[in-house]
Amino acid sequence: MSEHIFSYQQLFAFTNSIFIKMGCSNDDSFVATKTLLSADIRGIDSHGIARLIGYVRLWESERINATPDIRIVYETPSTAVVDGGSGLGLIVAPFAMQVAIDKAKNVGTGWVSVKNSNHFGIAGIHAMMALEQDMIGIAMTNASALVAPTFSIERMLGTNPIAVAIPAGEQPPFVADFATTTAANGKLELLQRKNEDTPIGWVQDKDGMPTIDANSLKKQGALLPLGSDREHGSHKGYALGSIVDIFSAVLSGASYGPWAPPFPAYVPMPENMPGEGLGHFFGAMRIDAFRPAEEFKSNMDNWIKRFRSAKPAEGHEKVLIPGDPEREMEIIRMKNGIPIVDSVLAELKSVGEKMGVILE
Amino acid sequence: MSEHIFSYQQLFAFTNSIFIKMGCSNDDSFVATKTLLSADIRGIDSHGIARLIGYVRLWESERINATPDIRIVYETPSTAVVDGGSGLGLIVAPFAMQVAIDKAKNVGTGWVSVKNSNHFGIAGIHAMMALEQDMIGIAMTNASALVAPTFSIERMLGTNPIAVAIPAGEQPPFVADFATTTAANGKLELLQRKNEDTPIGWVQDKDGMPTIDANSLKKQGALLPLGSDREHGSHKGYALGSIVDIFSAVLSGASYGPWAPPFPAYVPMPENMPGEGLGHFFGAMRIDAFRPAEEFKSNMDNWIKRFRSAKPAEGHEKVLIPGDPEREMEIIRMKNGIPIVDSVLAELKSVGEKMGVILE
Repeated sequence: MSEHIFSYQQLFAFTNSIFIKMGCSNDDSFVATKTLLSADIRGIDSHGIARLIGYVRLWESERINATPDIRIVYETPSTAVVDGGSGLGLIVAPFAMQVAIDKAKNVGTGWVSVKNSNHFGIAGIHAMMALEQDMIGIAMTNASALVAPTFSIERMLGTNPIAVAIPAGEQPPFVADFATTTAANGKLELLQRKNEDTPIGWVQDKDGMPTIDANSLKKQGALLPLGSDREHGSHKGYALGSIVDIFSAVLSGASYGPWAPPFPAYVPMPENMPGEGLGHFFGAMRIDAFRPAEEFKSNMDNWIKRFRSAKPAEGHEKVLIPGDPEREMEIIRMKNGIPIVDSVLAELKSVGEKMGVILE
Repeated sequence: MSEHIFSYQQLFAFTNSIFIKMGCSNDDSFVATKTLLSADIRGIDSHGIARLIGYVRLWESERINATPDIRIVYETPSTAVVDGGSGLGLIVAPFAMQVAIDKAKNVGTGWVSVKNSNHFGIAGIHAMMALEQDMIGIAMTNASALVAPTFSIERMLGTNPIAVAIPAGEQPPFVADFATTTAANGKLELLQRKNEDTPIGWVQDKDGMPTIDANSLKKQGALLPLGSDREHGSHKGYALGSIVDIFSAVLSGASYGPWAPPFPAYVPMPENMPGEGLGHFFGAMRIDAFRPAEEFKSNMDNWIKRFRSAKPAEGHEKVLIPGDPEREMEIIRMKNGIPIVDSVLAELKSVGEKMGVILE
């Protein structure tokens, strides 16, 4: 497995052109590209440009509308439901997060549930939109069912991530962004490419037995909720994933649980879908709706410094703050470029050829 | 270890009298008793009447004020900060949750961060206050530091629970209530009493090494965040516990992280506390601020029925919905009574003797 290094600018130009060829407006293409590539910059390779071909296929199969009518269909002073018009989640999500932020400006907090959307890239980047407004940002989404609830062999939930971004003062912000499973599906895909096994506790086989087979999902196995098994709290991961599903999809009227629309365009849509498309949930809380922002940020600086200085276990240099690894990666990749593996590069080239865009 | 069975009414009369002897008003005693015993009814024995002596000791050492001035110190249409006046968390929490509910009535959602409080019993019972208003309820709290972040040997966070209660229609509500650790401290205490080991992954020893010693916390060990170790996602549990700490304590101005006030009155207060008392965070979201409540509840019924019918793994009868075990326990204990173990009964008797209240 060899890697090819591209600059952010190269990947941006290519991706942006693909979205324009799909028929997205210039503005939408720009936002979609920025959102998608934020994953590559931050080192979450599974959710970045590697998925571009997946979005193109969804558009080809008419599951994504390149010129969607994204709109608020219901609202109160602190809430809204947004209909994503079958648009790219990559543009629906920033739209909806902005609605949450605007509401927070008016009444302290804003909460937006979204239906009729598609995959939105990484959750963290949407939550982070709140930071520059001195707000706490929250983002979550449901996703195609790959996860078996505790005691079950049936895939009922997606990896349903939760992101929370919290501003600090002199310190960088606290940015948590994690799947509610023990391991994200992207980590599994990485092991598959390398032909390596998973640790026990990441997946189960089709009978619900523990396995280390990284290809278990292709054999009717399932990802495990955070906690792995009942003895280690998998019922908590199952509850978290369920909360994300309900806030994102039941509250908005999207399709929930095992009926969430699949990302691969070749997988048929579930029958009898109880709602419209994929669902997201966003929140924005103005810091100064609770206490003066400067006081809060000074306390957050103290919080972060204290946790960074927590005594490390032997063999570990220091305790990390959520967001640290992604920030370090961002500095490295903006300087040295973004590695693209063979298989992804081949897919990008084939997409480029079909759409008349050259990756250079 | 033998058990003694008491009716809910017997325990209620006793507990209520203790709070009145502490100087709480009749109303406050009633609310505090109801909140505390909700844990015993629902089977979370570690957080119920077993802690009554702990509350009395905090009051004796003047860390709890029996006649607190609980008040809103700051607010916007959708937010508030409540100062608990060093009162019993058992009465501060219902006050603050009611503020969140009232705000949700006005602007769709309400969010309340609380400082200067104490332990509030089980989180779930506060979140459940929202259910009868057709609202989603959220409750969380920070707590004395027992948990080491990933890569650390220092105790920096409490077990910091999260509860989310979601109304359904014909089905019982979805009620998740869990510590953000692999195992709640109460489960550890149970093993200690029985002289049994823990599974690997619940605790670490003073050097950060895995251990099965249920008494590890007494030997400078620590509880592990949900996920147990880095390979199984403990950084996610650490992030969740941190979010609870920040929402509950940094947002309100309570004492956070390793400075959270200890529950045992014999443990000295941390030095240089950066805030006031313990912190909580509550949220209420009106269902019909998103979509008609009947539509949502009908979808929730469908969600719950679908998850209940998920194919069970061999050896398991069915998939549970968060809240099922506690509901089953409530039916049993309201009918058959509540078991109290020897050691707790002895403590209750000694408290009763001191305060002039008889448990009968």
